Amino acid sequence: MNDRIRVVKIGGNVVDNPDALNRFLDDFSRLAGPKILVHGGGKEATRLSRALDIETKMIDGRRVTDRDTLDVVTMVYAGLINKRIVAMLQSRGIDAIGLSGADGNSIRATRRSPHPVDFGFVGDIDPIDVNDILIAQLLKQNITPVFCAIMHDGNGTLLNCNADSVAMSVATGVARMAAADLIFCFEKPGVLSDPDDDNSVIPFIDSESFEKLKNDGVVSKGMIPKIANALKAIQSGVGEVYIKSSSELLNASGTIIAK
Amino acid sequence: MNDRIRVVKIGGNVVDNPDALNRFLDDFSRLAGPKILVHGGGKEATRLSRALDIETKMIDGRRVTDRDTLDVVTMVYAGLINKRIVAMLQSRGIDAIGLSGADGNSIRATRRSPHPVDFGFVGDIDPIDVNDILIAQLLKQNITPVFCAIMHDGNGTLLNCNADSVAMSVATGVARMAAADLIFCFEKPGVLSDPDDDNSVIPFIDSESFEKLKNDGVVSKGMIPKIANALKAIQSGVGEVYIKSSSELLNASGTIIAK
Repeated sequence: MNDRIRVVKIGGNVVDNPDALNRFLDDFSRLAGPKILVHGGGKEATRLSRALDIETKMIDGRRVTDRDTLDVVTMVYAGLINKRIVAMLQSRGIDAIGLSGADGNSIRATRRSPHPVDFGFVGDIDPIDVNDILIAQLLKQNITPVFCAIMHDGNGTLLNCNADSVAMSVATGVARMAAADLIFCFEKPGVLSDPDDDNSVIPFIDSESFEKLKNDGVVSKGMIPKIANALKAIQSGVGEVYIKSSSELLNASGTIIAK
Repeated sequence: MNDRIRVVKIGGNVVDNPDALNRFLDDFSRLAGPKILVHGGGKEATRLSRALDIETKMIDGRRVTDRDTLDVVTMVYAGLINKRIVAMLQSRGIDAIGLSGADGNSIRATRRSPHPVDFGFVGDIDPIDVNDILIAQLLKQNITPVFCAIMHDGNGTLLNCNADSVAMSVATGVARMAAADLIFCFEKPGVLSDPDDDNSVIPFIDSESFEKLKNDGVVSKGMIPKIANALKAIQSGVGEVYIKSSSELLNASGTIIAK
């Protein structure tokens, strides 16, 4: 593969907002070269859980996934949101294909140990378990993979994973065969030094400054795993990593992550 | 492609029964050569609709699909059932990939006219709109497509289709490039002359005997479109067409459809 592969992740807040999603998909469609989309979708799952009287339990920002909740996230992430996005991309001339990790054995995950916290059907991904051969074959056919965060363990069990980690793993996986960049898109213009001030984007973060930002309490709870994933990617062979606004995909903006 | 392609359809009653589904997938995994699975899943959608206080309206055995119902069937068919089956096949060593019609633009449908009956987001498929090139590429990579009955119109709208018609269209589509057979599997041992007697399988139906069975009232409401789809397939280039029990996939049994 000659072109750089761009792996783009959009968060649940963008997925939840039809205008923002439409605008983002317009831009994503215009992105030249091979590309991969990874999407979250947390709020819709919480809404469906509530309507079905299934309690939503979050620990450290991660959803505790019992059997009923696994059904809910499989329906919402792999069904509703994934197929909606794929159909929207098809209407924009992008030949998208929606994938869970089970599809084509594209990504295998390992169920997280129930100790110290039992998250239920939650999995973690080793980038080595990303099927880069399948992804390469799809990209070569000019097909754009669209991943939700539902993976499988290879033994018939689906597992709920973190979408940022999926994006990191996919980028790291495809970086084995071609130059790859990773772009985390969300509702903020980048990593902010003041969460209430959109003009406070931190233009550049490396592992050293990340430690300082954490110690000084500048980066908030939800941002810490996102930046950690971004750093992991850049340390594992991904070329360029950004954290930026979903409305600025095609523009130079946001936070650049460096080793 | 040298081998015959087998297109197998399983109905909602099999999908709904974990034992029957497990047994069927064991057999399907043992089926040699290139193969494609098409699944229904009606009951689970009705259950979810009920839990969400969405009224289920059926006309002539077809689900009236308003926007809320479209979300329900997309979640259940393309999400829950499709990913469950794909994960179960992966655990059996079959490299399955779950597809809606939007995925890889694999099947395009046309929204049904609202006259005389407005079915809402319901689509019909012309076999010419089956992407046999994509399907051939997947089969060549030893990947087994698993279709749900959610299609798209190419303009961003998902459409609920009849799973028997999807199976017929897929078989007819792939028959353009290779010899293809179509096997409808369901909870009965075949087309019965007496619905209460499982020993009354009609071994052979052609278009002439179908007319007679209809006129004599021998085949019931739900069987008529299934046989009609089977006849359409055999008249459009599909090699062999069967209607049989999901537990007899590997055995000679059931009803053979002929021109």
